[in-house]
Amino acid sequence: MTRNIRLLVEYDGTAYAGWQRQENGPSIQGEIESALARLLQEQVSVAGAGRTDAGVHARGQVASFKTSNELPPERIARGLTALLPEDIVIRGAEEAPPDFHARFSARGRRYSYLIATAPTALCRRSSWHVKQTLDAELLDRAAAAIIGEHDFQSFCRAEAEVQHYRCIVAAADWSREGDFLRFNIRANRFLHGMVRALVGTMVEIARGYRKGADLAGILGAHDRTAAGMAAPPNGLVLEEVYY
Amino acid sequence: MTRNIRLLVEYDGTAYAGWQRQENGPSIQGEIESALARLLQEQVSVAGAGRTDAGVHARGQVASFKTSNELPPERIARGLTALLPEDIVIRGAEEAPPDFHARFSARGRRYSYLIATAPTALCRRSSWHVKQTLDAELLDRAAAAIIGEHDFQSFCRAEAEVQHYRCIVAAADWSREGDFLRFNIRANRFLHGMVRALVGTMVEIARGYRKGADLAGILGAHDRTAAGMAAPPNGLVLEEVYY
Repeated sequence: MTRNIRLLVEYDGTAYAGWQRQENGPSIQGEIESALARLLQEQVSVAGAGRTDAGVHARGQVASFKTSNELPPERIARGLTALLPEDIVIRGAEEAPPDFHARFSARGRRYSYLIATAPTALCRRSSWHVKQTLDAELLDRAAAAIIGEHDFQSFCRAEAEVQHYRCIVAAADWSREGDFLRFNIRANRFLHGMVRALVGTMVEIARGYRKGADLAGILGAHDRTAAGMAAPPNGLVLEEVYY
Repeated sequence: MTRNIRLLVEYDGTAYAGWQRQENGPSIQGEIESALARLLQEQVSVAGAGRTDAGVHARGQVASFKTSNELPPERIARGLTALLPEDIVIRGAEEAPPDFHARFSARGRRYSYLIATAPTALCRRSSWHVKQTLDAELLDRAAAAIIGEHDFQSFCRAEAEVQHYRCIVAAADWSREGDFLRFNIRANRFLHGMVRALVGTMVEIARGYRKGADLAGILGAHDRTAAGMAAPPNGLVLEEVYY
């Protein structure tokens, strides 16, 4: 009997070319599929809820795969973690309904982005150090403008193949924690490069680099070149996937 | 004129043989002294408040050194951070009174120790993963027994050369944060290996490995062999030094 297994995955993306299996370097998906092949003695294909880019991390990535192996889920989780490199951890495994698919069944995702306002040694792999002073009110105002249903083409990589650019952003806010600023965003879907483009643009606005520009105007342009530079990948974490 | 400069230092100790300059590998002190030699064109000796062991981290290490160079403190901080490897950051520099000495002037220090109660990829360098279930009440009771003035010989490495083992512990407590347990301890002084021996012993007690044993009894033994194994270095962080 074919079973459908759902995994909860945490990873430090520093050493990887991204979630997706690819030619130009090791991938999280590739590592998990290799470990599964050893554990289950079977070639399986793993789907991930969020196809994170090179250097992006995850605390709550969800993946699913089908297998005829009868190993109990908790032994799959422990066995995989033991076989995987130490920067990938399977936090849990469970049986899922036959029609569950980590990516296509997902109804929403939450990402965080960490900015360091001072140089940091301990968080250098998980934050972007911004040297310029950022205006907290401009950051808050920019985040507020994102909330709701909008066309996010201005924040989508040009080469992305999608049918439309509408996303419903349920939450977007900045919080301060000591020398760090954390951006939280939850939406029904995310376009390719969207969070990094949003963060990069908000930082340009908050450091006073784009006088008079506001998020609403940039959204209205429907043009990637209207937005700012993408923030570096290492500050970004896929925190949670909703079903 | 000779100036006395005080530095606030953060580091990821993973790649180092400890704070102190030594033969068997790179040290934080050695890296800072090399960077200072390049920056000031002068050989200086740097004193650190806490001589952290190999693999131990710091968010608030304090160091001091004397120099006749007239570079302003903020330029020393920025210049050093630029010259140092990315896992060492100088968070600040300031002029100190002539008699200030990072180690001998210190009146207290605060350390934290992070335990992961589930496997973790993102915090693998900064936490100790304990697989066994820990009894929170036993942890709290053990921490409470440490508070006050006690002889900590049972938690001091045998080879340490000290005149006495008395330490005044001003605060010691455990807090839970999701899948993590954090131990916080503040004292006027710490003996060699003390926090790691305390954490290792408390974990042995809290996983039910030492039936009936309690911290007070182990303290009373004045013997390192009465206590438990040292917890691994990577969960330990020197958080703050008080003057």
